[in-house]
Amino acid sequence: MSRITLDELDQLTREKLPFAAACGIRAERLDSGSVTVRAIYQSQFLRPGGTLSGPLMMALADYAIYAAVLTRLGLVEMAVTSSLNINFLAKAMPGDLIAEAELIKLGKRLAVGSVDIHVAGEPNLVAHATCTYSIPSDIADTI
Amino acid sequence: MSRITLDELDQLTREKLPFAAACGIRAERLDSGSVTVRAIYQSQFLRPGGTLSGPLMMALADYAIYAAVLTRLGLVEMAVTSSLNINFLAKAMPGDLIAEAELIKLGKRLAVGSVDIHVAGEPNLVAHATCTYSIPSDIADTI
Amino acid sequence: MSRITLDELDQLTREKLPFAAACGIRAERLDSGSVTVRAIYQSQFLRPGGTLSGPLMMALADYAIYAAVLTRLGLVEMAVTSSLNINFLAKAMPGDLIAEAELIKLGKRLAVGSVDIHVAGEPNLVAHATCTYSIPSDIADTI
Amino acid sequence: MSRITLDELDQLTREKLPFAAACGIRAERLDSGSVTVRAIYQSQFLRPGGTLSGPLMMALADYAIYAAVLTRLGLVEMAVTSSLNINFLAKAMPGDLIAEAELIKLGKRLAVGSVDIHVAGEPNLVAHATCTYSIPSDIADTI
Repeated sequence: MSRITLDELDQLTREKLPFAAACGIRAERLDSGSVTVRAIYQSQFLRPGGTLSGPLMMALADYAIYAAVLTRLGLVEMAVTSSLNINFLAKAMPGDLIAEAELIKLGKRLAVGSVDIHVAGEPNLVAHATCTYSIPSDIADTI
Repeated sequence: MSRITLDELDQLTREKLPFAAACGIRAERLDSGSVTVRAIYQSQFLRPGGTLSGPLMMALADYAIYAAVLTRLGLVEMAVTSSLNINFLAKAMPGDLIAEAELIKLGKRLAVGSVDIHVAGEPNLVAHATCTYSIPSDIADTI
Repeated sequence: MSRITLDELDQLTREKLPFAAACGIRAERLDSGSVTVRAIYQSQFLRPGGTLSGPLMMALADYAIYAAVLTRLGLVEMAVTSSLNINFLAKAMPGDLIAEAELIKLGKRLAVGSVDIHVAGEPNLVAHATCTYSIPSDIADTI
Repeated sequence: MSRITLDELDQLTREKLPFAAACGIRAERLDSGSVTVRAIYQSQFLRPGGTLSGPLMMALADYAIYAAVLTRLGLVEMAVTSSLNINFLAKAMPGDLIAEAELIKLGKRLAVGSVDIHVAGEPNLVAHATCTYSIPSDIADTI
């Protein structure tokens, strides 16, 4: 079971993560170590060629893993991204983006997760990312 | 010598890259395969803890390599990011972010660049990224 | 169904991939786009602390994705690794290593796969990798 | 100035890193946070097409960053690779491989370095890697 609710995460996002909020990013499902996050379509995310921009997908992947970490640790605002690796797999046509993220490790110092991103209503993946988060020392001692 | 000017890149950014424009990203130096790009500070980029968010640095790194590719190919709007890997090295205190990007390969199908990011006026790096761009086939044939 | 058999891959490995052969790497399962590969334990793979070395896992991940590409393309020796990203998740105690690899994209120019590695008999992952392979142009045209 | 000598590193490699030793990997220059490492050519490193294999370059990159960490920390055998990202830039024709590695961060918990690899006598890079190392807690407290 998630240690954070959708309402708590929404409030955290509005108050402390204005960049994600401005990107229209919002979680839809929070299970323990596994989440679904959506980025609502905005035309400002288009790039030349009329497809969705890479940086939006990076922001979405980063947020999705952060949310997945919070489902296990609770409201630990200070977990920070340590690294992110993303491969773009196909052009993302205009639409909402859906990220499915899973934690693959939650250690004392580091969390690692993977994310698959697709356009809502389309089966093919448009990006795959792996992201590591650094866990604050004071929290780490309680895991 | 760069095959694109600062004015041309600014115009492209305003018209075709609204996400980068909204992030306050703007190139300051364009040499052949080597560029400097700045992201003007906005409070919306802060994350919990009062430091600059990772996704802003990802967007900046991605843009900087794109600009570096254009310095060699000219106005090839359709080059698309193929992958990005970023490591965060230190907390980024509020301020403008400066990215220094260098192409390390420009092949027929793929360009690879590396980016160092620091906060304006601070010597330490806050992030290091490597990014690959896919070159359109029709352009590739002319390289 | 795989377009290459275990015997064909074994022969290719012995004749053309002596490094993988010397590492004791051998496929155990070849399905279309999905493979299982084992690296037989050798004491030369230990590193300080008595755990299995990272480079062995990198070699195993690289081989596993190569094998997964061949299950779809057949005996295309010339597919070459374009990039690899690996995160180490836990210490790998002495034993055989098992890699489970899945293709997540097979495009005309690029294949992308992900790999999970664990020690035989242990449930926890010790490494997760994402790897991209470049597809030769002459083959690409037939996909 | 390096906190480890070439002789000390050679001895560590022979005794504790047999995989690197078997790959013919040996440091040639150790400065503080900056090293040059060579992998002596062996025909077993060839892959289909007659070029040098990716996994050899991964092993070389990993070793080079490890050596760079030791130049700053001294003989800390237990630093372990946390992640590695490598991009292959050009085919590596048969010959010795030379890696030039630089630490770009040495923190209390994590070291990050970048590596450029070329074939001896050839100017072009064949690979670029970024690698992170986890620093043991007991050492971290003394940095």
